[in-house]
Amino acid sequence: MKNFIFHSPTKFVFGKDTENEVGDLLNSYGAKKVLIHYGTGSIKRSGLFDRVVESLNKSNVDFVELGGVVPNPRDDLVYDGIKLCKKENVDFVLAVGGGSAIDSAKAIAAGAKYDGDFWDFYDKKAEIKSALKIGVILTIPAAGSEGSASAVITNTDGMLKRGLYSPHYRPTFSIINPELTYTLPSYQTSAGVVDMMGHIFERYFTNSENTLFVDRLAEGALLSIIEAGKKLIDEPTNYESRSVICWAGTIAHNGFFGVGRQEDWSSHRLEHELSALLDVTHGAGLAVIYPAYMKYTLDNHVKRYKRLAEKVFKIVSKGKTDKEVAEAGIEALEAFYKSINMPIRFSGLNASEKDIPKLVNKLEENVGKSFGHFEKLTLNDARKIYELACQ
Amino acid sequence: MKNFIFHSPTKFVFGKDTENEVGDLLNSYGAKKVLIHYGTGSIKRSGLFDRVVESLNKSNVDFVELGGVVPNPRDDLVYDGIKLCKKENVDFVLAVGGGSAIDSAKAIAAGAKYDGDFWDFYDKKAEIKSALKIGVILTIPAAGSEGSASAVITNTDGMLKRGLYSPHYRPTFSIINPELTYTLPSYQTSAGVVDMMGHIFERYFTNSENTLFVDRLAEGALLSIIEAGKKLIDEPTNYESRSVICWAGTIAHNGFFGVGRQEDWSSHRLEHELSALLDVTHGAGLAVIYPAYMKYTLDNHVKRYKRLAEKVFKIVSKGKTDKEVAEAGIEALEAFYKSINMPIRFSGLNASEKDIPKLVNKLEENVGKSFGHFEKLTLNDARKIYELACQ
Repeated sequence: MKNFIFHSPTKFVFGKDTENEVGDLLNSYGAKKVLIHYGTGSIKRSGLFDRVVESLNKSNVDFVELGGVVPNPRDDLVYDGIKLCKKENVDFVLAVGGGSAIDSAKAIAAGAKYDGDFWDFYDKKAEIKSALKIGVILTIPAAGSEGSASAVITNTDGMLKRGLYSPHYRPTFSIINPELTYTLPSYQTSAGVVDMMGHIFERYFTNSENTLFVDRLAEGALLSIIEAGKKLIDEPTNYESRSVICWAGTIAHNGFFGVGRQEDWSSHRLEHELSALLDVTHGAGLAVIYPAYMKYTLDNHVKRYKRLAEKVFKIVSKGKTDKEVAEAGIEALEAFYKSINMPIRFSGLNASEKDIPKLVNKLEENVGKSFGHFEKLTLNDARKIYELACQ
Repeated sequence: MKNFIFHSPTKFVFGKDTENEVGDLLNSYGAKKVLIHYGTGSIKRSGLFDRVVESLNKSNVDFVELGGVVPNPRDDLVYDGIKLCKKENVDFVLAVGGGSAIDSAKAIAAGAKYDGDFWDFYDKKAEIKSALKIGVILTIPAAGSEGSASAVITNTDGMLKRGLYSPHYRPTFSIINPELTYTLPSYQTSAGVVDMMGHIFERYFTNSENTLFVDRLAEGALLSIIEAGKKLIDEPTNYESRSVICWAGTIAHNGFFGVGRQEDWSSHRLEHELSALLDVTHGAGLAVIYPAYMKYTLDNHVKRYKRLAEKVFKIVSKGKTDKEVAEAGIEALEAFYKSINMPIRFSGLNASEKDIPKLVNKLEENVGKSFGHFEKLTLNDARKIYELACQ
């Protein structure tokens, strides 16, 4: 195992009706005035917003609100949120939603304690020194932002989609009630499944040695996510499957599966350009990228992909070469994505080969000439992976 | 999954040479004066104490020291530590050692912020409202106290060994360098292996439903602990096996494997009386208790023990009844304990049937007439389990 620091201080409050504890929780952390930050209004239609407000009122916690977060959250709303927090002396940002609302809330929390332009953090011109406290009520299990120290924001001036890591981005608490996810459209549920599996893949795809201990935990998690993902296609209100997806999605991205090893993140880089430029759902984009990435890098990583095939996709290796086992695993991954109605090629994203040049250009702008750890990739490699994802 | 709260805020700093970061870490948390709390001097002989002092000096962190912690740490030293902290205005307690030093440090940290007798907390006469910050440099992987919210102290007036849970008992940071454990006597290493497996068993032995997700993670951890435990018998300086034991021991007891389910803890209760009355090493005592506990409760829990047998001990079920598979698993557990030179009967602890009446009496004093969740046990059940552990 490589040396590591693991620090996941977030208090996770998990289970039925837990959203009603939000006022008490905010009180316990001394919150006086909260910004409730959310998406396009489904939390109002579902009654969740009212329950949150009732809990805050009971606990005498004052609040202001800002809705309107869109998938691939944008800088313009972050600026609005920062302005509002400063004007209203907000001391706690409460995201109610999925990864987009949470990431937007994180950027607001950091920007509200900074005199300059918050994009400085994303441009590496400044470092986050402090932030407002962040709380979460999760409604979409996918991004893992409820337990992570990162937030991805898209700068609409140039459509730059960039991620940033900061210890200040760790939520103080995250409330996770699987029932709140019952009404998610099936497409969103499946995209979430792909996303959280991806967060494990990015850590599983490593050249570090002696990773067996965490590998085994990761494989157990992947198996459970796949089972639950399949079940939710027909039974969207299966509490146990929703629970697995919610908790797995959280620990898939709080760092737990990354200890002691080098992580990769190439596929996320490749996908970010898809969602930034073509506004596709991140998880759907990943379902297209992973198989192409794995096929392209197969020859150098037969052993790792073979293990994944055997342990997670239960490929029987008898009578097959190692490479054939690994290939069968990639096929099984594609079949799984298809079984949960995810696209596995560009065409399923309404994208085509014609989009590749601009994807590669944007990638260069964001990551430079090369990227990745599991396999060091050039922009030419990136182009070829995008091409494979079209075929 | 049952509703749960998971909150493990400790910063884990893991790997080679990490003990040299202790001064910087203490500084980052604003420590001014530290109590270095340790055992019977091996950290002085090994040079670890000097390295810690050097790091503190570099970071201008003042300190006092208190050694002398013994296995099954006792209240008298806790009183000494509290007195010293109050006199010297200590603001941070740094435990350098294993579970005993850490537990003793935790009790000191709570007592130093309390005007009454710290045993009030253990007598349930008072609740811990605050504590000094606690840091750890781990030298014995076993108890998991470096990541847990509990501490077990023995009251020498009556030899009451009692555990206590408090959020204030979570260390602020824990430094874990597997190399520091190279010189542990083989018996201590093996006892630690039994102990951390026990922390997983207490959570794995549950009647809660829909626990498959965490079960799989637990089984992966158990497999890795068993492999590493065996390897360390012949290769005590195998860094990778030491790493597995160190990290597994930490997450085995920080709550991770207990989410969403009812936990048991009967076997720990049964063992505590052994180590309190007969001063046996906790892990060795557990190696004697678990097989007896499992045999005694087998008929009601065939399914759970069968799963353990298949997944962790790779028992092939073909041609066997479920009960036979479960029994084979218990035999395999005993064989594993023996293979790492642990006792599996009272005789191996220099104990005998004659000790049972006083063990049962003490148990009654500590837990009352019944205990346990996986199987509700009476004092008569306890007697029978102790008897089974003699045969």
